[in-house]
Amino acid sequence: MVRVGVIGAGQLARMMIPPAVNLGIDLRVLAEDEGMAAALAATDVGDYRDVETVLRFAEGMDVVTFDHEHVPQNVLRALVDNGVAVHPGPDALLYAQDKLLMRAKLSELGLPVPEWARVTSVDELQAFIDDNGGRAVVKTPRGGYDGKGVRIVESAHEAVDWFGAVAELGDDAALLAEEVVDFRRELAQLAARRPSGTLVVWPVVETVQRGGVCAEVFAPAPQSAGKVEEVAAQIAVDVANGLGVTGVFAVELFETTDDRLLVNELAMRPHNSGHWTQDGSVTSQFEQHLRAVLDLPLGSTEPRDPVTVMVNILGGPAEGTLADRYAEALEKHPTVKLHNYGKEPRPGRKVGHVNVSGDVLDDVVYEARAAAALFDSSAVD
Amino acid sequence: MVRVGVIGAGQLARMMIPPAVNLGIDLRVLAEDEGMAAALAATDVGDYRDVETVLRFAEGMDVVTFDHEHVPQNVLRALVDNGVAVHPGPDALLYAQDKLLMRAKLSELGLPVPEWARVTSVDELQAFIDDNGGRAVVKTPRGGYDGKGVRIVESAHEAVDWFGAVAELGDDAALLAEEVVDFRRELAQLAARRPSGTLVVWPVVETVQRGGVCAEVFAPAPQSAGKVEEVAAQIAVDVANGLGVTGVFAVELFETTDDRLLVNELAMRPHNSGHWTQDGSVTSQFEQHLRAVLDLPLGSTEPRDPVTVMVNILGGPAEGTLADRYAEALEKHPTVKLHNYGKEPRPGRKVGHVNVSGDVLDDVVYEARAAAALFDSSAVD
Repeated sequence: MVRVGVIGAGQLARMMIPPAVNLGIDLRVLAEDEGMAAALAATDVGDYRDVETVLRFAEGMDVVTFDHEHVPQNVLRALVDNGVAVHPGPDALLYAQDKLLMRAKLSELGLPVPEWARVTSVDELQAFIDDNGGRAVVKTPRGGYDGKGVRIVESAHEAVDWFGAVAELGDDAALLAEEVVDFRRELAQLAARRPSGTLVVWPVVETVQRGGVCAEVFAPAPQSAGKVEEVAAQIAVDVANGLGVTGVFAVELFETTDDRLLVNELAMRPHNSGHWTQDGSVTSQFEQHLRAVLDLPLGSTEPRDPVTVMVNILGGPAEGTLADRYAEALEKHPTVKLHNYGKEPRPGRKVGHVNVSGDVLDDVVYEARAAAALFDSSAVD
Repeated sequence: MVRVGVIGAGQLARMMIPPAVNLGIDLRVLAEDEGMAAALAATDVGDYRDVETVLRFAEGMDVVTFDHEHVPQNVLRALVDNGVAVHPGPDALLYAQDKLLMRAKLSELGLPVPEWARVTSVDELQAFIDDNGGRAVVKTPRGGYDGKGVRIVESAHEAVDWFGAVAELGDDAALLAEEVVDFRRELAQLAARRPSGTLVVWPVVETVQRGGVCAEVFAPAPQSAGKVEEVAAQIAVDVANGLGVTGVFAVELFETTDDRLLVNELAMRPHNSGHWTQDGSVTSQFEQHLRAVLDLPLGSTEPRDPVTVMVNILGGPAEGTLADRYAEALEKHPTVKLHNYGKEPRPGRKVGHVNVSGDVLDDVVYEARAAAALFDSSAVD
């Protein structure tokens, strides 16, 4: 049986289980801990930063892939040096791990990005702020996700603690400064690329963020057929080829008020903006990721319905579990597809999502939001 | 976490794993052996005919259900006596386990069935044959499936060995004799019923059998909108209520050349005629079964596309595994949804199936057959 090893046992690894079952793939997960979201497929528990642990886990795998982008380069290199197929590979993952390297590479490739600078001091940051309308987005180059490690500042002094923090991490104390983009909305372009080169794209989607976290996705992005869809797809192609990405990846985009698309972030793994594909596309991003990293032919990315909307369940109920709400939620919303990550509810935590497909955006959005709300604390009492 | 125990680790239990992951259900399987189709969820290996084994397995389960209908009545009764929720329950399963009881019950309920008789001797069988145009279908009341235990005879002497066999089994040597129905095609009506009574039906489908085994399913059944669909659905409602069925079940039907629907067989579990729902319906039969046995609200049974076709992979490649064919099959058929049961290929064995959905029956059938053929021995050399 074909064997795929996944490092990390979060919800992304969990959601690879259903397609692995369908395709007859022996999916094995290296979990950070007992009882995680992907526990069903966990065959090892250990530290993904430890070379020996990861090498032992990788024995006998046809390919090793990831639930997250945090596996250190020395571990990734050790896998490759030991003949393990790793997708995405260390060279590509470097750009997902370091936003300064990513910005530099995208600029080198001529891809559209916000104004940015590598700033190593409060003075350099202040100069950037002054040059960019009195504001800047400051990001720590490493370790940020879901809005963490991102701050909008009007004065460089608001980031003085971060200069200290990155220095302690052994970096050379650089932060990434970016212009505050005047955007109409955020889009995301999901794609998959095989090691042998074939690439497929799903239609570009609109993402709605709340508090720096993805809250909703509309697929395809409304009013985006034609040029927007083409440009977004071409950006994904250029990113994948330029950075050597393999597997499923997502390019987060700003659609500016002056009708440009700028690359915001990259994710080199299945992505929250692609959860709609589980129920809304012929091939889900999780099935596609398994196919891609195994260098198998990729599946159709056609939408199954005119519209699919994904709404995250953020936090979950204040008391009890998601399952306590099933009687009401499933009764009221028989067309909703629920994805429960099996995680303990906690304020702001992604504990699940719902997908709804249909013909009319307004109806589908209403249904998805109403169902998701029944699982969230705010809907209680 | 809600916990569902499944007795039996075949492909039906396997295909409950994806929806269990989605719904956050802790699915636990009592497997007959190591390495079976549902091994991923197997928490116990043991004999389902052994009361102690099954009682131990059932501890802590919210409900116990089945991959097959062969669990003996004394085991089922022991579960119920120990306060375990069992769906479908022993009273209902009795009719799926004994075709004579099933025929008698359906007749009592006034449901349309072929002419039939309980025959206890060669003479009685010959009399039935003589009364029914010189032919009869003879069935062993227990233990048959996929065409096993079914024989078409023109003389009672062709079944003399079976009278001996059922006598040895401790039965009172009765066989079921049925008229050979002059049918246009075979249909199947899939439905689900909660213990609290709510029932939903999927659209009736057409099934194509080869050698007594389901080979293809067209969903919905072509030219069956309106009266045929209504009558088939009503039969399922009457069967479920009359027999107290819970969970997903299927009624296999003959559509006669004189436009009647007759009940052929009952299956009190997810059924091969319902595999199309995994990719072709808003709610798959496997998700619905979990919801039904947990007495949760049932999901929409709407088709996702005008047509979905399921083609079984019977036998698999003469050499190697299904996965050896992925490179070719997935390349040529990017819209096909493959379901690999993880079983060793063996002539005639159900080792997987494909689903294809679309707008035009002929296109969809072609695509599904072409893909399935790439996995079967006959397609080699």
